[in-house]
Amino acid sequence: MNSRLARRPRRQGASAAPLAHLEWRNLQHRFAPVDALTPDELMLLHEASMNILEDIGMAFMDDEALDLWQQAGAHVDRSSQMVKIDRGLLMGLLQHAPSEFVWRARNPQYNIYIGGKHLIFSPHGGTIFVSGLNVKRRPGVMEDYVEFLKIVQSCNLLHVTGEQLIVPHDIDVSFRHLQRLKAAIHYTDKPIMEATHGRVIANDNVEMMKLVFGEDITQSDQPVLGGIVNSGSPLRWDDRMCGGIIAYARANQVLIVTPFILAGAVAPITMAAAVAQQNAEALAGIALAQLVRHGAPCIYGGFATPIDMRSGNPAFGMPEGAWATLASAQMARHYGLPYRSSGTLNTSKVPDAQSMLETMWSTFPAMNAHANFLQHATGWLEGGLTVNKEKIMIDIENLAMLQKYLEPVQINADTLALEFIAKVGAGGHHFETAHTQARYSTEYYSPILGDRQNHETWEKGGAQDMAARASKVYEAVLEHYEAPALDESISEAVSAYVDKRQRELAGVNLYY
Amino acid sequence: MNSRLARRPRRQGASAAPLAHLEWRNLQHRFAPVDALTPDELMLLHEASMNILEDIGMAFMDDEALDLWQQAGAHVDRSSQMVKIDRGLLMGLLQHAPSEFVWRARNPQYNIYIGGKHLIFSPHGGTIFVSGLNVKRRPGVMEDYVEFLKIVQSCNLLHVTGEQLIVPHDIDVSFRHLQRLKAAIHYTDKPIMEATHGRVIANDNVEMMKLVFGEDITQSDQPVLGGIVNSGSPLRWDDRMCGGIIAYARANQVLIVTPFILAGAVAPITMAAAVAQQNAEALAGIALAQLVRHGAPCIYGGFATPIDMRSGNPAFGMPEGAWATLASAQMARHYGLPYRSSGTLNTSKVPDAQSMLETMWSTFPAMNAHANFLQHATGWLEGGLTVNKEKIMIDIENLAMLQKYLEPVQINADTLALEFIAKVGAGGHHFETAHTQARYSTEYYSPILGDRQNHETWEKGGAQDMAARASKVYEAVLEHYEAPALDESISEAVSAYVDKRQRELAGVNLYY
Repeated sequence: MNSRLARRPRRQGASAAPLAHLEWRNLQHRFAPVDALTPDELMLLHEASMNILEDIGMAFMDDEALDLWQQAGAHVDRSSQMVKIDRGLLMGLLQHAPSEFVWRARNPQYNIYIGGKHLIFSPHGGTIFVSGLNVKRRPGVMEDYVEFLKIVQSCNLLHVTGEQLIVPHDIDVSFRHLQRLKAAIHYTDKPIMEATHGRVIANDNVEMMKLVFGEDITQSDQPVLGGIVNSGSPLRWDDRMCGGIIAYARANQVLIVTPFILAGAVAPITMAAAVAQQNAEALAGIALAQLVRHGAPCIYGGFATPIDMRSGNPAFGMPEGAWATLASAQMARHYGLPYRSSGTLNTSKVPDAQSMLETMWSTFPAMNAHANFLQHATGWLEGGLTVNKEKIMIDIENLAMLQKYLEPVQINADTLALEFIAKVGAGGHHFETAHTQARYSTEYYSPILGDRQNHETWEKGGAQDMAARASKVYEAVLEHYEAPALDESISEAVSAYVDKRQRELAGVNLYY
Repeated sequence: MNSRLARRPRRQGASAAPLAHLEWRNLQHRFAPVDALTPDELMLLHEASMNILEDIGMAFMDDEALDLWQQAGAHVDRSSQMVKIDRGLLMGLLQHAPSEFVWRARNPQYNIYIGGKHLIFSPHGGTIFVSGLNVKRRPGVMEDYVEFLKIVQSCNLLHVTGEQLIVPHDIDVSFRHLQRLKAAIHYTDKPIMEATHGRVIANDNVEMMKLVFGEDITQSDQPVLGGIVNSGSPLRWDDRMCGGIIAYARANQVLIVTPFILAGAVAPITMAAAVAQQNAEALAGIALAQLVRHGAPCIYGGFATPIDMRSGNPAFGMPEGAWATLASAQMARHYGLPYRSSGTLNTSKVPDAQSMLETMWSTFPAMNAHANFLQHATGWLEGGLTVNKEKIMIDIENLAMLQKYLEPVQINADTLALEFIAKVGAGGHHFETAHTQARYSTEYYSPILGDRQNHETWEKGGAQDMAARASKVYEAVLEHYEAPALDESISEAVSAYVDKRQRELAGVNLYY
């Protein structure tokens, strides 16, 4: 790797940037996970999943996937594309999936660790619309995409670029993945996510990352690229997703295997069944990756969400989803797989009280569950249809609080401060002790947006709510954005690849 | 007890009331508590607390309290009012405090259970101002007090009347406790809280509750009245609080013993020291109650909160407070004492995203901590200076979600629904299965305020945020309020007592 790229995350000029004080860290869970399932209950869910895979089967709508399963000894029905997978075969394949791995960034200071107690925050993904105090809700464009990449690069709490931060509607569908990935390479030097949708897209991603790293990334056991694959529930891995799984697994890149389970719609209404079905779908997808290449890095994704029976829309940030988060994480731990959950799932239209009530009902259960990879950790509104600029900043505040929460609290003679408790005595105060003075600017979390003024001062300052304050900070973060170093030759090679592929793919429909 | 009072919570006319679908339940924690402390760390905190009590001491600014300590063998310095308490004496006294007890309501269907895995939601307390979409922030009056009592009575998620829901500024300070308690008796039949501030107030409360229950409540091991006592940190129980502790303990009524620890101000800035000091103060208060009467029902209160070093105001809903919540609960469990925490601590001025971000940073840690008694479970804004009407309803939504979260999820052949997973097969949907149809209206939490409409419908409906929707529901709840049954003779006796005492207390300053 070019030595110019291998330096530490930059600091110059950062002092005025609103998020510059937030350190880059490799976060780890500190408290024990909260278990939702007794060991017996876990085995009931496991058994149900095995019964689904053995007796009902899973559709793999892709010839190569069916070939792979057939060669492995599964029962394959070519006409229905249903594959019945014996638990011995399945569990044997899962043995090859790594429990922990390193996901490299162009800037090695941003390398991340997946699995174990590690915790990664990833921004919003797959959103269609953008909204904000200064932008009326509208479909996303490439300029928005770049803007979000700048936010990601500017915030040490966001550990990966994110996947499909917003749909760039102004880019031809055949070229979107090329333009997105090119932008991610130029505007960030963090670990990169890019869509794993079919072989063409996935292979382009791999080829471009070879150019970036100047090596055959498929030969390394440390991936540099990751993407989310969603089963087409119930019980279906379509050709697009099978292609993505096969291409990324073959290249040894990260697959975040997440059944898109909306209980009551594409799974039974009971959450026990939804989690069992999700488990069957996730394990089948991960097993396919292992069939392609033993050791392919995979993350077990949980997303089981109840449907709102009145509107037919997903009901995000709900107690049933919180239970599913805990239960799914426990299943992943049982199989020794890293676990992906979600942060800001909510259905509100604006960054109001509802948006944070539901967001916290996603985030805290994910923390309790020991999620290793927190997708959609920022920005969601409206069930993920919309990304909201103020909501991004509000969620970053929450992530910063979580980072602080994960710091060990020291308990020793120095922090117990008995000497000062004695000196201050009954009825005194600690404002001016040497103990307080030495720590007053560093001891506590210092809010980015949170307002603690008294009411009069707050009113004189314009009586702004959190969203209004967030809008200003968002703009300031963008103003202070600094592009990462990128070797000119890499930049040119990536651009040349994109130009060539755009000529080749003109008119090819990659999104269906 | 009068048989008219002993009936079940009423249902008539309830169908149209917005909260009527929420059931009264004796909630219990379902998941294991999250521990913040290793056993060694817990012992370090315990040791520090013992050192504080043995070597530094605690001020008890009340002659009777000092007499009690002296008789018990503690080292009492009359001039400084400092009491040094040996750990043997302290722990011996704590042995008498019950781990669990029943707190009776006038309507026995509303009896509550304190300690163990039990969980009680108590509304906001001690607030000065009221605000709402239809009321500009102003000091509270008795009419507000009654309004909040009606909300409490109307909501099955609020298990006690709350303590000092708002200051009734229009009532003479000498009569406030009389008017508040009289209102609570008339507008609710739930377990009652009333201020434990000095002997006069506390004894009036006890006398009035004797009239309500028609018995000498001081002879029962099941209390009917509770109040919060706060130490005047650091290391100080003032005469007002000592008087309250002594009066309630003597009458065998509930004391919620909560040091008001603002770390960096009235305790060292380090949270380890803050929790150790809190522990010393709480245990000393509970021990005083046991000195008065072995077995007096006490709840160990945790409130350790960092101070915002920029504004000097408390920093509520913060990661440091969350850690303190977990650690304090663990200390309480170590001593076998029920634990009180807080729900909606936040510093926002309006019911916006900040208010819920911080509220959830109080509520979820309290749930993780296995709080037994969640004070301020509704309504707070502005660090508790203000109670906001919309925030009450938003918080009730959250409590309803918590109630649902605490329901066991059944995992069995019926809920695993393999038959229906098989029948629907790959790519189908579950909307119309018998399994879904049998459960669609009951399986999931149904939001009171949460909006899940699509964007267009929401916009046509006025593009309301959660606070706007909450305002309407709040008014509807009030409209549907129904007064509980109250025996005429009790009502008259209580009123006569209040009249008599108002004549006697005229001009007496009970609030200082």
